[in-house]
Amino acid sequence: MAPALELLEKPAVALPVKSISAIGKASAADFTLESPEKHQRVMDVFRAFIADICQQYGEGHAGSPMGMAAIGIALYKYVMKYSPHNCDYFNRDRLVLSNGHACLWQYLFMHLVGVRSMTLDQLKSYHSTRTDSVCPGHPEIEHEGIEVTTGPLGQGLANAVGLAMATKNLAATYNKPGNEVVNNMTWCMVGDACLQEGVGLEALSLAGHWKLNNLCVIFDNNSVTCDGSADMANTEDINTKMRATGFNVVDVYNGDSDVAAVAHALVAARSSNKPTFLNIRTTIGFGASKAGTADVHGAALGVDEVARLKSSVGLNPEDHFHIPQDVYDFFRDIPSRGEVHEAAWQAALVKYQETYPVLAAEFALRVAGKMPQDWRQCIPRKEEQPTASTASRKSAGVVTNALAQNINTFLVGTADLTPSCNVVYKNKVDFQSPELQTACGLNGNYSGRYIHYGIREHAMCAISNGLAAFNKGTFIPMTSTYFVFHLYAAAAVRMAALQGLQQIHIATHDSIGVGENGPTHQPIAVAALWRAMPNLLYIRPCDAEEVAGAYMAAIQATETPTVISLSRQSLPQYPQYSSREGAMKGAYVFVEAAEGGDFDVTLIGVGSEMGFAMQTRELLLQDGIRARVVSFPCTRLFEQQSREYKQSVLQPRAGKPTVVIEAYPANGWERYADASVSMNSFGKSLPSKETYEHFGFAPEMIAPKVKDLVEEVRRDGIGILRGDFRDFNGGLRIGLEH
Amino acid sequence: MAPALELLEKPAVALPVKSISAIGKASAADFTLESPEKHQRVMDVFRAFIADICQQYGEGHAGSPMGMAAIGIALYKYVMKYSPHNCDYFNRDRLVLSNGHACLWQYLFMHLVGVRSMTLDQLKSYHSTRTDSVCPGHPEIEHEGIEVTTGPLGQGLANAVGLAMATKNLAATYNKPGNEVVNNMTWCMVGDACLQEGVGLEALSLAGHWKLNNLCVIFDNNSVTCDGSADMANTEDINTKMRATGFNVVDVYNGDSDVAAVAHALVAARSSNKPTFLNIRTTIGFGASKAGTADVHGAALGVDEVARLKSSVGLNPEDHFHIPQDVYDFFRDIPSRGEVHEAAWQAALVKYQETYPVLAAEFALRVAGKMPQDWRQCIPRKEEQPTASTASRKSAGVVTNALAQNINTFLVGTADLTPSCNVVYKNKVDFQSPELQTACGLNGNYSGRYIHYGIREHAMCAISNGLAAFNKGTFIPMTSTYFVFHLYAAAAVRMAALQGLQQIHIATHDSIGVGENGPTHQPIAVAALWRAMPNLLYIRPCDAEEVAGAYMAAIQATETPTVISLSRQSLPQYPQYSSREGAMKGAYVFVEAAEGGDFDVTLIGVGSEMGFAMQTRELLLQDGIRARVVSFPCTRLFEQQSREYKQSVLQPRAGKPTVVIEAYPANGWERYADASVSMNSFGKSLPSKETYEHFGFAPEMIAPKVKDLVEEVRRDGIGILRGDFRDFNGGLRIGLEH
Repeated sequence: MAPALELLEKPAVALPVKSISAIGKASAADFTLESPEKHQRVMDVFRAFIADICQQYGEGHAGSPMGMAAIGIALYKYVMKYSPHNCDYFNRDRLVLSNGHACLWQYLFMHLVGVRSMTLDQLKSYHSTRTDSVCPGHPEIEHEGIEVTTGPLGQGLANAVGLAMATKNLAATYNKPGNEVVNNMTWCMVGDACLQEGVGLEALSLAGHWKLNNLCVIFDNNSVTCDGSADMANTEDINTKMRATGFNVVDVYNGDSDVAAVAHALVAARSSNKPTFLNIRTTIGFGASKAGTADVHGAALGVDEVARLKSSVGLNPEDHFHIPQDVYDFFRDIPSRGEVHEAAWQAALVKYQETYPVLAAEFALRVAGKMPQDWRQCIPRKEEQPTASTASRKSAGVVTNALAQNINTFLVGTADLTPSCNVVYKNKVDFQSPELQTACGLNGNYSGRYIHYGIREHAMCAISNGLAAFNKGTFIPMTSTYFVFHLYAAAAVRMAALQGLQQIHIATHDSIGVGENGPTHQPIAVAALWRAMPNLLYIRPCDAEEVAGAYMAAIQATETPTVISLSRQSLPQYPQYSSREGAMKGAYVFVEAAEGGDFDVTLIGVGSEMGFAMQTRELLLQDGIRARVVSFPCTRLFEQQSREYKQSVLQPRAGKPTVVIEAYPANGWERYADASVSMNSFGKSLPSKETYEHFGFAPEMIAPKVKDLVEEVRRDGIGILRGDFRDFNGGLRIGLEH
Repeated sequence: MAPALELLEKPAVALPVKSISAIGKASAADFTLESPEKHQRVMDVFRAFIADICQQYGEGHAGSPMGMAAIGIALYKYVMKYSPHNCDYFNRDRLVLSNGHACLWQYLFMHLVGVRSMTLDQLKSYHSTRTDSVCPGHPEIEHEGIEVTTGPLGQGLANAVGLAMATKNLAATYNKPGNEVVNNMTWCMVGDACLQEGVGLEALSLAGHWKLNNLCVIFDNNSVTCDGSADMANTEDINTKMRATGFNVVDVYNGDSDVAAVAHALVAARSSNKPTFLNIRTTIGFGASKAGTADVHGAALGVDEVARLKSSVGLNPEDHFHIPQDVYDFFRDIPSRGEVHEAAWQAALVKYQETYPVLAAEFALRVAGKMPQDWRQCIPRKEEQPTASTASRKSAGVVTNALAQNINTFLVGTADLTPSCNVVYKNKVDFQSPELQTACGLNGNYSGRYIHYGIREHAMCAISNGLAAFNKGTFIPMTSTYFVFHLYAAAAVRMAALQGLQQIHIATHDSIGVGENGPTHQPIAVAALWRAMPNLLYIRPCDAEEVAGAYMAAIQATETPTVISLSRQSLPQYPQYSSREGAMKGAYVFVEAAEGGDFDVTLIGVGSEMGFAMQTRELLLQDGIRARVVSFPCTRLFEQQSREYKQSVLQPRAGKPTVVIEAYPANGWERYADASVSMNSFGKSLPSKETYEHFGFAPEMIAPKVKDLVEEVRRDGIGILRGDFRDFNGGLRIGLEH
């Protein structure tokens, strides 16, 4: 990300006037088409090469890449603005391969246009045992030229909507008439699957609503899926549906061969006033005998068939992995055109810097992935924290408000829970098309950073992945919904963790304390998922001070998504005991049993249930049992600490049991505790306090159980062995006992 | 469920000819409308009562129920065929309230039409502390008259598609010309949210594709969501979109008052050749001063406003929870009409039994929720199991094939992974509209039990919930997809567990052994979710024999969904050691260290990774370390066993550590083990064996670590304390280290 800053500091290179326009809207005049014969030659070689790669190990996805050859030429040779020698150049067009199994298509075009890491040797590493391969079975963001990791279907499409939003937001924030510093397009390849998956459909609705005319969805309409003919599971009128969803719909009928038609349709998308949906008819595995069938979807063609394929187009069947020089020559101009695009952007930046130095400085920081001001000033200081009971969703709202109000990096969204999740910030502007006038008179524009996602949790999170992936650090998306609804979005949040995309997910209503909404709204098992998910922070703060710590941890984790888990109900505040620094270590000693004294039991208090631990401690003391309390907001952060620190917090000793109190299943807490007060069934529709009591969460119900355990352990002198964990509420159940 | 069987045995009651037609198609002539004034009177009282209920505790959802009053009268008074004194009568029309927060609407109508458990007292228990309330904050299937638990938006809509499929499948299997034993309609109320959620959109695409003309989706189009005007997040042309999706679309413009228009539109849906989408314009909180705004969505109106509301329609503001006799009288005919419906069905059954005794016997068993033949005969016997290495997805395929081929109870579906998930059965017939002719010539009909869901995992599972909820035991839906894609469907599978709906989810490709598809396709954290989910069995069998045990456990768990977790890759078979009975206990001793001898360490082998445990045992023996191996396919089943059995399997003893080997995070295994060989990052795109090796899964990498641990524990004489769990692969990471 550093180069962009340097660009601002360097003098502009002299540029021909024409190339400046390269960063503005393009027109068909921007390219001169080669002959159909030349296109055919490139496609023949391309398809044979794909067949060779899959044949080497007798597996892989050959069909879609072969079918998409013409689309690839149109994009890589004529339409996309990118720079193969500097794939990360900021204002590049983004290409998302939402049908990620077709990755060979992307890998081979990257090789042909001159992406340096994509050598011939690397191409052959697809499906090999090479651990340094840049050609994994699906595209991965870690590798040069890949915008987002795709494979789980529909995700890439939603990511593309996020990428297009990112451009719109930056453009509305920084561009000036005649001096545009961001104006790239987002191209998104999709297959049938992405248009069937709910996350894709949700994202399309939003793209149409927001009139993201810088997005072009390219449908590789080969009408075949794994099961066979796509019409076995789908017979809708996709064009009409897409028009109803707010898209400009364009048909291309011969997507197998007619590069010119594809290129013209693509370039027209740049000047649409709506997002564009290109419905391009192709043939899966074009050129193969079984072209047009599911047999060519996810398998090699067979040695003889590969040979036949080559012979049929005049290639030597004995040549393997062969790219003739004339095919390389066809793409020879791409790197230098890329340099022109880069230089044009650089020149625009220099001009911008001269005219708008303040904005330019902020923009440069955003390009560098840095925040324009010190976010730490937005976190309430310890002495500013409330002392009266406060719901942690409210405490979080205070921090979100300060961050979002002051720092353009934060894009705050909600899945239609504005009144509940407390993420609205002062003077917020909605992210909306400026053309939109709603029935209730609300409006916004593209510089807005408050996003009404509608009731679409999955798209919210998948779009956030696109926002975060636009250029790491330029945006930190925040989402908000009820914690239980994270299950709707889990596949997308996982993709953020896998890709190292920083985000903050505000998850309110995080316990059975939700109350009357009942078991459908009371999250029981969701925390177990996030605690087991690699590279994700799940933080349950117990009060406003720990909320501050949660935000600090989240903002410092620049390659990790964070879920901040918050209560609907009011929580007691512990200004004497709680600590942001402690929270940032994952767990810490909240209060010892007595000043320097010994203890009988350790209670682990977690997030919204901390109050039960503290009240139980008091009750136990009346019975002469000395309990220390550990606050444990984040298991992942705690596991990063030294063994010494961990032991000092947990103080595991024979004869001194540890009991965790959390209204989720105990799964995972067995690492730290001998016993638990846990949830082992789904919840119940009762008021908050009564719900807790119904499931044994009340100090007067907990204390006797802890006392019994302490006495048992004292009696036999040993600790609780593995395999003998005590779940006071009886263990996870089968059947319907709420 | 027993009554249906009894019905078959009783003589038919004499019925007037007209009432027989009540189980066939209805027409407008089937009802005589009361006057608009009468309707208005009922609506006024209804709305005032809703306002009273929410006002009692100053909270709850009043807006939608008030807006849907006219729709409710049309459904409950005129159109729906049901029997309030026997809500479970088999051939009843199903009503799904997909906008579950509007449950008061359903509760109050149930009261008015005479559902006996829905007393006036119970109505007041909404949001109360009563633990025996039948009026929870969202409708729950446990209570009389509720078809499915709803609340998480979009789920109910997909359930309704499943309910409509259930009818179609039963009808195609059992109905005869002139003698129909199943022909109910499914009515589904939706709000804006259900039409925005991806799961709803997926399900609608399928309903249109399958031409489920027995489904009517009723859109309570009040144009308001929590955030305010719905057009803030949605401006698509819903009618055009629904037509493109294959629906018959009908508009009703005055849904606030025009009961007649609603009733006629509803009844016309019965004779549509497509599913019907009724777009009914209503006003949220109709009658309140703030009607039509988000303010009335999820809050009480306020004492003064409730009084004003009553006065404005001529009701006494001093009367609370008051239903005048004339309003009760309005619905007085419903119970007797319900009895006529029931009797008509009973008569049809008797006639059917006379003409088709064999089919009738099977149908009676289905109605009783029993399988028509002993499923145990479909499970391969121990001696039939393979001895050569076999992928567990293949072993499972053998069982699925036998079950699905022979027993109509099983509906087998796939999210477009027919070639991978091995759930195709011999002579399968696809569930399709008989009108469908696909491009590749495939077809099917409604009696088909193989379901191509398309690439729609979420709808697949949510629709399966509807199939299972039609009448518990009539269907056992099976789904199939890759395990990692369960994250797409998690919200629906959770609803199955919450509702006690029996299903079998075939989850293949369950480990990093998936190989080349890479980290996007390698499930790491998913198992942690299912292991923590109440009332769900997650079973990872290690070979074909344990696969048999997994199916047996799944079929015996009549109120619990089961996920059977299977490998893509070949697995060694252990005919000497593996046991279906052991698997059904969750865990068992696979092999002792030596005949009656002592041991040094216990290795826990799990599912697809069992081979590593067994090979490690061999290697350790060469070093003089005696390892016993425990097979642990299901933590939930194990937790149901006696403490004695658990101890006998685990044999926890000081100085004898236990090590679990599983290519998932250790989370939860700390209950049983002191150390783990686990996954702590996402996976990698490599061939299967190399992926495992890359992450330390190879006996020659595991054995030395186990040896070190055994020696350490020997040296210090104590076990591993809580808080000192050893994760040999380093613990769950932050950052991107694949």
